[in-house]
Amino acid sequence: MTIAIYAGTFDPITNGHVDIILRSRKLCSAKGDQLYVAIGLNPNKQTFFSEEERINMIREVPAIKYCDDNWIQVSSFQGLLIDYAKQIGAKILVRGIRSVSDFEYEINLANINKVLAPEIETVFLPTSPRLAVVSSSMVKEIAKHGGNISDFAASYIVEKVNEKFGFIKTGKTQ
Amino acid sequence: MTIAIYAGTFDPITNGHVDIILRSRKLCSAKGDQLYVAIGLNPNKQTFFSEEERINMIREVPAIKYCDDNWIQVSSFQGLLIDYAKQIGAKILVRGIRSVSDFEYEINLANINKVLAPEIETVFLPTSPRLAVVSSSMVKEIAKHGGNISDFAASYIVEKVNEKFGFIKTGKTQ
Amino acid sequence: MTIAIYAGTFDPITNGHVDIILRSRKLCSAKGDQLYVAIGLNPNKQTFFSEEERINMIREVPAIKYCDDNWIQVSSFQGLLIDYAKQIGAKILVRGIRSVSDFEYEINLANINKVLAPEIETVFLPTSPRLAVVSSSMVKEIAKHGGNISDFAASYIVEKVNEKFGFIKTGKTQ
Amino acid sequence: MTIAIYAGTFDPITNGHVDIILRSRKLCSAKGDQLYVAIGLNPNKQTFFSEEERINMIREVPAIKYCDDNWIQVSSFQGLLIDYAKQIGAKILVRGIRSVSDFEYEINLANINKVLAPEIETVFLPTSPRLAVVSSSMVKEIAKHGGNISDFAASYIVEKVNEKFGFIKTGKTQ
Amino acid sequence: MTIAIYAGTFDPITNGHVDIILRSRKLCSAKGDQLYVAIGLNPNKQTFFSEEERINMIREVPAIKYCDDNWIQVSSFQGLLIDYAKQIGAKILVRGIRSVSDFEYEINLANINKVLAPEIETVFLPTSPRLAVVSSSMVKEIAKHGGNISDFAASYIVEKVNEKFGFIKTGKTQ
Amino acid sequence: MTIAIYAGTFDPITNGHVDIILRSRKLCSAKGDQLYVAIGLNPNKQTFFSEEERINMIREVPAIKYCDDNWIQVSSFQGLLIDYAKQIGAKILVRGIRSVSDFEYEINLANINKVLAPEIETVFLPTSPRLAVVSSSMVKEIAKHGGNISDFAASYIVEKVNEKFGFIKTGKTQ
Repeated sequence: MTIAIYAGTFDPITNGHVDIILRSRKLCSAKGDQLYVAIGLNPNKQTFFSEEERINMIREVPAIKYCDDNWIQVSSFQGLLIDYAKQIGAKILVRGIRSVSDFEYEINLANINKVLAPEIETVFLPTSPRLAVVSSSMVKEIAKHGGNISDFAASYIVEKVNEKFGFIKTGKTQ
Repeated sequence: MTIAIYAGTFDPITNGHVDIILRSRKLCSAKGDQLYVAIGLNPNKQTFFSEEERINMIREVPAIKYCDDNWIQVSSFQGLLIDYAKQIGAKILVRGIRSVSDFEYEINLANINKVLAPEIETVFLPTSPRLAVVSSSMVKEIAKHGGNISDFAASYIVEKVNEKFGFIKTGKTQ
Repeated sequence: MTIAIYAGTFDPITNGHVDIILRSRKLCSAKGDQLYVAIGLNPNKQTFFSEEERINMIREVPAIKYCDDNWIQVSSFQGLLIDYAKQIGAKILVRGIRSVSDFEYEINLANINKVLAPEIETVFLPTSPRLAVVSSSMVKEIAKHGGNISDFAASYIVEKVNEKFGFIKTGKTQ
Repeated sequence: MTIAIYAGTFDPITNGHVDIILRSRKLCSAKGDQLYVAIGLNPNKQTFFSEEERINMIREVPAIKYCDDNWIQVSSFQGLLIDYAKQIGAKILVRGIRSVSDFEYEINLANINKVLAPEIETVFLPTSPRLAVVSSSMVKEIAKHGGNISDFAASYIVEKVNEKFGFIKTGKTQ
Repeated sequence: MTIAIYAGTFDPITNGHVDIILRSRKLCSAKGDQLYVAIGLNPNKQTFFSEEERINMIREVPAIKYCDDNWIQVSSFQGLLIDYAKQIGAKILVRGIRSVSDFEYEINLANINKVLAPEIETVFLPTSPRLAVVSSSMVKEIAKHGGNISDFAASYIVEKVNEKFGFIKTGKTQ
Repeated sequence: MTIAIYAGTFDPITNGHVDIILRSRKLCSAKGDQLYVAIGLNPNKQTFFSEEERINMIREVPAIKYCDDNWIQVSSFQGLLIDYAKQIGAKILVRGIRSVSDFEYEINLANINKVLAPEIETVFLPTSPRLAVVSSSMVKEIAKHGGNISDFAASYIVEKVNEKFGFIKTGKTQ
C-alpha cells in the first residue's frame, strides 16, 4: 500500500492543483493506495479562507468529490511536511512544478527532505501549460478587482471566492 | 500492475542513473510492478559502447544485478519513447533532473508527450546533489585523458570505460 | 490609432524606465499613437514618494518633458492593469525585461492577461545591459546610505531622492 | 509606415510561428504597415524543405493566406538579419519567446543588434502556453516516427511533412 | 596585502558559509592577507540571534577558531557593503553561489558595486553541491519543529539554535 | 606565489576575455603571482585561427602587451584543464560568467573539478554587462557578413579577423 502526499496552502484550491492531483493517480494506483491532499497550517500566516473552509472547498471540487474508492484523503497538519509524511507512513511527496523558479525552490526542498528522511521520495509533476499560469494568489487578486476567474477554478470555488469579496452572486457564477 | 520506463542512452550507465533507478522504486512498488531501464537507439548517432555492451553494463551494476523479484527489466527500443511506452503498457515515464536546463528541456518533452498520449504521466525525480554533476559524456571525457572516474560509476563500468580507451587495467580499478 | 501602456510603480522613475519608454516609440509611432506611462496605485502598499510626486518626477525627466506631439501621457490607475488597459482602449502592454526572474514572472502575467483580455498583446522590451542593473529600490537603497545614484536616474530625480532622505543639496547634484 | 520582420528557418512553419505572426499585428496595425515573414537562408545548413517549399508552405497557412490588405510579406534573405532589416527599412524585429533558454539567447542577440543598428528595436512576444511546446524540429521528429502532428501545424503543413517522410496520404490528413 | 570580505547575516553561520570561507583562502593566501567575515547589520530587520551572539557563534566554528595566523577577522558593519569595503581597504568581495536565482541576484549586485567602486572586484565561489541546500533560514525552520540540523551546522551552532528554541540539551548534541 | 589560469579557445580573444583578465588581477596581485591565459587545444575541433595565430593575437592586445612585470603568461595545453592546472601548480581557475546558461555549465564543471582536484578552487567573475554580449563566435559571424566588430575586440584582432575573411584592409580598421 503506497501513501502519497500532495501538500499546500490551498487558499483556495485551483484547477492547477486539481490537475496535479489527477496526474498523481498513476503514482499510487494499486488497490488501497492513497493520496493525502494535505493543508499545511502555519499559525503565523493569515489565510483568506479558514482551515475548515479550505477543507470543504477541496472536498467540493467535482473531480475529488466523485473520485471512487476513498483514494483521496483531505487532511491538515502543522510543522514540517516531512514529519507529517513519516507520521502517516507516506513514501511519496508529490510536488507540482510550473516554472524554473518553482523548480529551484522545490529541488532544494527535496534535497533537504532527503537528508531528513532518506526513505521518502519527492516526485515532481509538470502542470499543464494551460494551467501553469494559475495560482491561488493570482485567483484572489483577479477576483478582488471583480475579474472573471472561472477559467482558473471549479465553479464552487469561484462562488466562494466571490462571496468572500462581497460580490453578491445569485444563481450561476459567470 | 504499474509499468514505469526510465529511458536514456546509457553510454555508459553512471552513478547518477543508478540513483534515479533506485529512487523510482517508490513509484512502482506493488507486487508485479516493473521498471524498464530502456536504451533509446538512434541509428544516426554513433555511441561509444554498442547496444549489447550497454545492456550488459547496466545488468552488471550491483544495485541492479542483485535487485530482487525481476523488478528491473533492461531493454532497448527505436523510435519515439512515447510509442514504446504505449507498446509495453507503461503508465509512467521517469526522468532525472539535475539542473535548470535539464528541467526546461524535460518539461517541454513532457508536455508534448502528454498531447501524444494523455494516459501516460511523466514524473521528474531530482538527482542527489552529489551525483548531479555526473553525466555519461563527462565520464568519458575524464577517462579519455586518464582521469579517475571511480566516484562517478560502478567499478565494472569504470573498468569497461578504461579498457575501451586502451588503458590496460589489471586487478582492481583504483 | 494605437495606445500602449507602460505601467509600474515608478517610485521613483529610473534611467532603466526611461530606456524602455524611448524604445517603445517604435511600437506606436503613427500620428496620433500614444504611450501611457501609468502609475499603478496600491492602497495597501506604502510608497516612498506620493502619487503626485511620482507623476511630477516622471514629467520632469528631460526625455519625457521634451518629447514632442503629446505622444506620452502620464497617468495613474487602481485595480488590475488589464482593466485599465480596456478602459482607455490600449492594445499593447509594454514590459521591460532585465533578467530571467523578470522574464518568468512577466510571461506568467502576460498569459493570465491574455486569458482575461485576448485582444490586448503584451510585448517585452529588453533593457540595455548597462541599465539592467538599475531598479527603483536599488536607487533608494544606495541613496539612503549616501551613495552616488547619478548614473541611475535623471538629475532632477537624483535631487528629489536625496532631498527626501534629508541630505541638503545646494546647487547641482554631483 | 512601420515595417516589422519576423525571421526564422520555418522548416516547416508551425502553429507556434503562426501564433506569433497573429500577435504581432498589434505592433504594426496602421494602414500600410507590413510584417515580413522572412526565411533566413544558411548555405551551410541542410534543411528538410527547400527555400521554395518553405515559402509556399507559409503562404498556404490559412491565417496568412486569407490575411487582408497585403499586411504579410513572405520573403527570404542571406547574411545577418540586422542587415536585411536595414535594407528593407524595418524598425522592429519580432521574436517569439517560449522558455528561459530562448530568452537568454534572444536577449543577447537583441543587445548585439542594438549595437549594430541602434535605430531598430527587438520586441519579444510570448508564445501561448499551449503552443510553447511546438518547434519545427519536434514536429519533424514526431512525424518521422509516424506520430500525429495535427495539433502542432496547419493541415496543409501536416500533409507536406508526412509526404516528405514517404507516408502516402490520400484524402484529408486526420 | 590583499583584504577580502565575505559578508552576510550569519543568523546563524552554517556549514555552507564555512565552505565558502575555506574556499576563499586561495584568493588571499599571501602572508598578511586577510578575510573579513562581516555581519551586515540592518536596524530594520529582526534577527534570531543578536549581533554579539552571531559574532561569538562564528568565532566558535572549529575551522575558524583554529585557523592560524589571524587570517580571519570577524566584524560587523552598517550601511552599504561597498562602503565598508572601501573603508577597510578590501579589494575583493567574496560571494557564495548556490543556485540560478542566487546567481541572478548576485550578478546584478556585482554590477552595481562595480559602478559604485570600480577598483573592487566581486568573485563568486560555488558552494559544494552537498551544502548548497543549506541556508540559515532553513536551519531555523527545521530546528523550530524539532528536526535534526546536525548535518547543516557545526555542533556548537546546533546547540545554540536548539537552546534558543527552548529545547533543553544536556551533554552532547544528538 | 599564487598561479591562476584563465583558459579558453580564444578563437579569437575578445574584449569580453580581456575584461576578465584585467578583473582577475585582484586574485593574484602579490609580487610573483601569475595569470596563465591558456589556450585549450582540441585536436578534434577545427578552429578559425591556428594555435600560433591565437597566441600572437592574445599577446598583441594592448592591455596584455603592456602589462608590467610578467604577470600574464600566454600558453596552450592539451587534455583536461584540471591536469594542466596541477602540472603548473595553479591554485585558481578563473572563469567568466555572462549568463544563467554559462552559470549552470560552469558550476557543474567546477564541481567535477573539485572532485578531481580538491586543492584547486574555481572562481567566477562576472563579465561587464556591456561586454556580456560578446563571444568569439558572434564576432566571427558578424565579421563574416561584413559587419563592424570594432566594439567587440581590440583593433589588431579586428584586422586579423577581417583579413582572414578576405576583406582587404589597408591602414586603420574602421
